[in-house]
Amino acid sequence: MTPLEAYQKLEAQERRASAVSGAMSILHWDKAVMMPPGGAEARGTQMAELSLILHEVKTDPVRADLIVRAEDGSVELDTWQQANLAEIKRSYIRATALDPALVRNLAQSNTAVEMAWRLAREDDNFASIAKPLQGLIDLVREEAACLGEALNLAPYDALLDGFEPGLRETEIEGLFAKLNSVLPDFLDEVISAQAAAPHQPEIKGPFPIADQKALSFEIMADLGFDFGHGRLDESHHPFTGGIPDDCRITTRYHEDDFFQALMGTIHETGHAMYETGLPKAWRDQPVGQARGMVMHESQSLLFEMQAGRSPAYIGYLGEIARKNFRRDGPEWQGDAFASAYHRVEKGTIRVFADEVSYPLHIMLRFDLERALLSGDLRTADLPGAWNEAMTRLLGITPDNDREGCLQDIHWYSGAFGYFPTYTLGALAAAQIFQAAQDAVPDMDEQLASGQVKALLEWLRTNIHENGSRISTNKLLMQATGKSLATDAFLTHLKNRYLA
Amino acid sequence: MTPLEAYQKLEAQERRASAVSGAMSILHWDKAVMMPPGGAEARGTQMAELSLILHEVKTDPVRADLIVRAEDGSVELDTWQQANLAEIKRSYIRATALDPALVRNLAQSNTAVEMAWRLAREDDNFASIAKPLQGLIDLVREEAACLGEALNLAPYDALLDGFEPGLRETEIEGLFAKLNSVLPDFLDEVISAQAAAPHQPEIKGPFPIADQKALSFEIMADLGFDFGHGRLDESHHPFTGGIPDDCRITTRYHEDDFFQALMGTIHETGHAMYETGLPKAWRDQPVGQARGMVMHESQSLLFEMQAGRSPAYIGYLGEIARKNFRRDGPEWQGDAFASAYHRVEKGTIRVFADEVSYPLHIMLRFDLERALLSGDLRTADLPGAWNEAMTRLLGITPDNDREGCLQDIHWYSGAFGYFPTYTLGALAAAQIFQAAQDAVPDMDEQLASGQVKALLEWLRTNIHENGSRISTNKLLMQATGKSLATDAFLTHLKNRYLA
Repeated sequence: MTPLEAYQKLEAQERRASAVSGAMSILHWDKAVMMPPGGAEARGTQMAELSLILHEVKTDPVRADLIVRAEDGSVELDTWQQANLAEIKRSYIRATALDPALVRNLAQSNTAVEMAWRLAREDDNFASIAKPLQGLIDLVREEAACLGEALNLAPYDALLDGFEPGLRETEIEGLFAKLNSVLPDFLDEVISAQAAAPHQPEIKGPFPIADQKALSFEIMADLGFDFGHGRLDESHHPFTGGIPDDCRITTRYHEDDFFQALMGTIHETGHAMYETGLPKAWRDQPVGQARGMVMHESQSLLFEMQAGRSPAYIGYLGEIARKNFRRDGPEWQGDAFASAYHRVEKGTIRVFADEVSYPLHIMLRFDLERALLSGDLRTADLPGAWNEAMTRLLGITPDNDREGCLQDIHWYSGAFGYFPTYTLGALAAAQIFQAAQDAVPDMDEQLASGQVKALLEWLRTNIHENGSRISTNKLLMQATGKSLATDAFLTHLKNRYLA
Repeated sequence: MTPLEAYQKLEAQERRASAVSGAMSILHWDKAVMMPPGGAEARGTQMAELSLILHEVKTDPVRADLIVRAEDGSVELDTWQQANLAEIKRSYIRATALDPALVRNLAQSNTAVEMAWRLAREDDNFASIAKPLQGLIDLVREEAACLGEALNLAPYDALLDGFEPGLRETEIEGLFAKLNSVLPDFLDEVISAQAAAPHQPEIKGPFPIADQKALSFEIMADLGFDFGHGRLDESHHPFTGGIPDDCRITTRYHEDDFFQALMGTIHETGHAMYETGLPKAWRDQPVGQARGMVMHESQSLLFEMQAGRSPAYIGYLGEIARKNFRRDGPEWQGDAFASAYHRVEKGTIRVFADEVSYPLHIMLRFDLERALLSGDLRTADLPGAWNEAMTRLLGITPDNDREGCLQDIHWYSGAFGYFPTYTLGALAAAQIFQAAQDAVPDMDEQLASGQVKALLEWLRTNIHENGSRISTNKLLMQATGKSLATDAFLTHLKNRYLA
C-alpha cells in the first residue's frame, strides 16, 4: 500500500463518518423542532446506535497503521491533504484515548446528571445534585487525564483542546487577566454614564409573531442566508444545526419583545454563514469542518454584536422593523432605538448579560471549573464559592441557586473547558471585525443600508473557506495580523459605550 | 453458544438494523417535507451510506451460523421468538441472495431510469425511455431469478414475496379471474344507474387551506390518531412515514376540492393506525413490523373506502365539514353530499380511479408486468399493448403515453410485483370490515356519529397487534374465518353502488 493509498482509505472512512454524523445532525434538529414527545425514546435509541457506529468507524483498528503509512509519504500529499491527515490523526487519538468502559460511564453519568439537574434547577435544590455532579466530575477528571496522556497535554488543556484545538489554559489566563484589570471599573463607568443620559422614548409591544417571523426571514435574506440551503424554524433553545449544505437555524419569539428573536436570528445566521461558507471540496472530511468553538462563536458574535448592533446597522434595523410592524414614532429612530439595545446592567444570569458584563460571568466559571476539576473545590461548596465570586466580580449576589450555580447546563452535562470559548469568541469577533473594517473602508455606509455583502466576502476568503486547514492562531494572524488579544474588544467597548 | 444465546445475538443485530432503518425513515420524511432543495445531494450521500451500513448488518457472515444454531434449539423459544427467527431468516436469505455487483447495478439503474422517466413523462416521450427501461427489466429478471433460487420460488413469486410474504401468482390469478368475470359489466351497470339518477346539488369551493388543515386535524383526532406519537404535514405525494412511535403522515391540499385532501388524510391515518398499533414489545424486531403491503393497504382502504365512505360516516363528514367551512345548503346533506363521493366513471388514470374501476387498472398492470418480465413483451411494444388492454378492459383509449404507460413510477423504479397488492388490499379491506361489522353490531350508528373506537379496538386485537407473528393468510383466517376472497368486496360494491 502506498502512502497515498493509505491516505485515501482514511478519506473513505471519513466519508462514512461524515454521512453518519450529518444524518445525526438532521435528526438532532428534528428532535428539537419537529418530533412529537412520544418519539423521544425511539429517537434516543437511534441516536445511541448511530453514535456507536460512528465511534466504530473512528476507532477502526486499521487506522493506526493507515495513519503511520500515510504520514510516511506525506510529501506526496498537498497542503489540504496534509492538514486533513493531521485532523484525522488528532480525532483518532482522541477517540482511542479513552477506555470503552470510561466512555460508557461518562455517557450514562452525563445523561443522568443532566436529567437530575433539570429537576434540581426547577426546585432550586442544589443539594439534590451535589453528589451526582461530584461523580460526574470525577469521571471528567479521569477523561481529562487519559486525553492529556494521549495528547501530551495537561488535563485541563486536553479538555480545552476538544472544543478549540490548540487552546491552552495559560493563554486564557493571560487574556482574562487583562480583561479583569479593565472591565469591573469600566462596567461601573458605563452604568453611571447611561444613568446620567437623557431618557429616551421606549418601544412598546405587542409585536405579532407572524410579523416577527416575516422580519426574521427578511433580515436573514438581506444577510445573504440562502434558503435553498437552509431553514429557519422555532425551538425552545435557539441553535444552528444541520449540515453546511442544509443549514437549520432556530429562534424563539416573544410577543412583547421582538428584538430578542431578531438578534437571536442574526446570531445564528452568523454561525450559519460560517458553516455554509466552509470549503465545498472538503465537505465530508475533517479539514472541511469549522475550526473550533472560538472561531464559531466569533462568527455569530461578529454578526450579532459587532455588525448587528453597530449604530449604523441598528438604524437600518429600526427602519425595517418599524415598517414591518406598521409603526411610527421617535422611539424607532436613531439614538432612541439604539439606546434600547445598548443598555448595560449587572445581572445574575449569563445568557441575559450584555457584552460588557458577559466576560465577568465567564471568568467566574473559568476559575470555578478549574477548581472543581483540580479538587480544590468540592461540589458541596460550589454554591458558596459561586455567590462569593459573583459578589466580588459584579457586586451582586444571586437570590438563590437557580440564579446562581444551577443556571447553566454545561457542567451538569459534563462540558468542562467550554465556557472560555464564549469570551474568546467575543475577543476574536472584535479583532476580526476591526480587520474587516480596515479592508472595507465604507463599512459603516454599507451597514447603514443593511448591506453586508463586502463584509461577507471578506469573511469567506479570510475565515470560512479555510475550514480547518490552519490553526486558529494562524487563521487570526492571516486575517488580522496578530494573535488573539483583548485590544480590539476593549476598544470596541469604549467606542460603543463611552464615546 | 446455546441456541438462546445465538437467537439473542440475532436480536441484538436486528436492534441495530431497526435503529438505522428508523433513522432513515425520519430522514426520508424530512427529505419529502422539510429539506431545502440544496440539501438533496448531501442527503443522497447520507442515505446511500446508511443503506450500506444496514446491508452490512443484514448480511453479516456470522448470521448464517447463528440462524442454524438458534433453529436447532427453537423449542426453547416462545412463539413470538420463533416467528421472529423465521422473519430474520427470511430477510437474511433475501439480503444475501443477490451478488453485490447486481445490487449495485440495480440501484444505479433504478435511480437513472426513474430520473429519465420524469423527463419522458413530462415530454410524453416513451421512446426515450424504452431502452433504459428494458435494461432495468433485464436486471430485475436477474434479481427475480436469484431470489427465486434462494427462496425456492418461481421468479415472479420471489418478487411478490418481497412485498407480501407468502403471496403467489396463482392466488392472484384466481382472484383476478373472479373480479374480471364481474367487474366490466358491473361497471357499465353502475354508470348507467348513476346517469339515470336525479341530479343532486353540488358543493362549490373555494375551501381555504387553513380551514382544510383544521378539518384534517379534527378528523384525525376523532379517528384516534395520537399527536403525541405523530404529525400531519404536507408533501407532493401523500405518504405514511416515520416509525410506529413517531408516525409522520402527509397530505396535500387543493383550494377547489377539500375532499381529496380529507380522504387522503383518512387513507394515511389508516396506514398510521396499523403502524402505531403494532406490538410494542417487538418494536425493534422483524416480527414487530407490519405483515406486508396487502395488509397495509387493507388498513388504509378500510379507513378510506369501507368505513370512510360508508353513507353513515359520510353523513358525519358532511356535517363537520359544513361547520368547519361555515357553509350551509342541501348539498352538504344526505344523498346529495354522499353522491358526490360515490361517483363512478371510466378514466385512464389509476390514481384518480373509483373503487369499482380501480381493479381493472391493476389487472392490466399485472398482465403486462408479467409479460415484460417473461420477455413475451418487449418494452418497445409496451405503449401499444397498454392501449389495447385499456380499450379492452375499460373501453377507453388514452390520448397519449402520459395518460397511458408513462403514468406510474413503479416499473421505472424497478418495482415489479407491487401493483397487485393494491387490489388485494381492497379485497382484504372489504373482508376485514365485514368481519368487524359482524363483531360490532351497531357499527353504522357509531360511524354516523363519527365514532370508530369499537372498530379500532377490534382491528388492534385482530390485526395490528399480531405484527408479523403469523402469515397474512392465517391472519385473515383468524380475523375473518376465511382466506382472501372476492365475495366481501363484490358484495360491498353491490350494496354501495347498486342498492
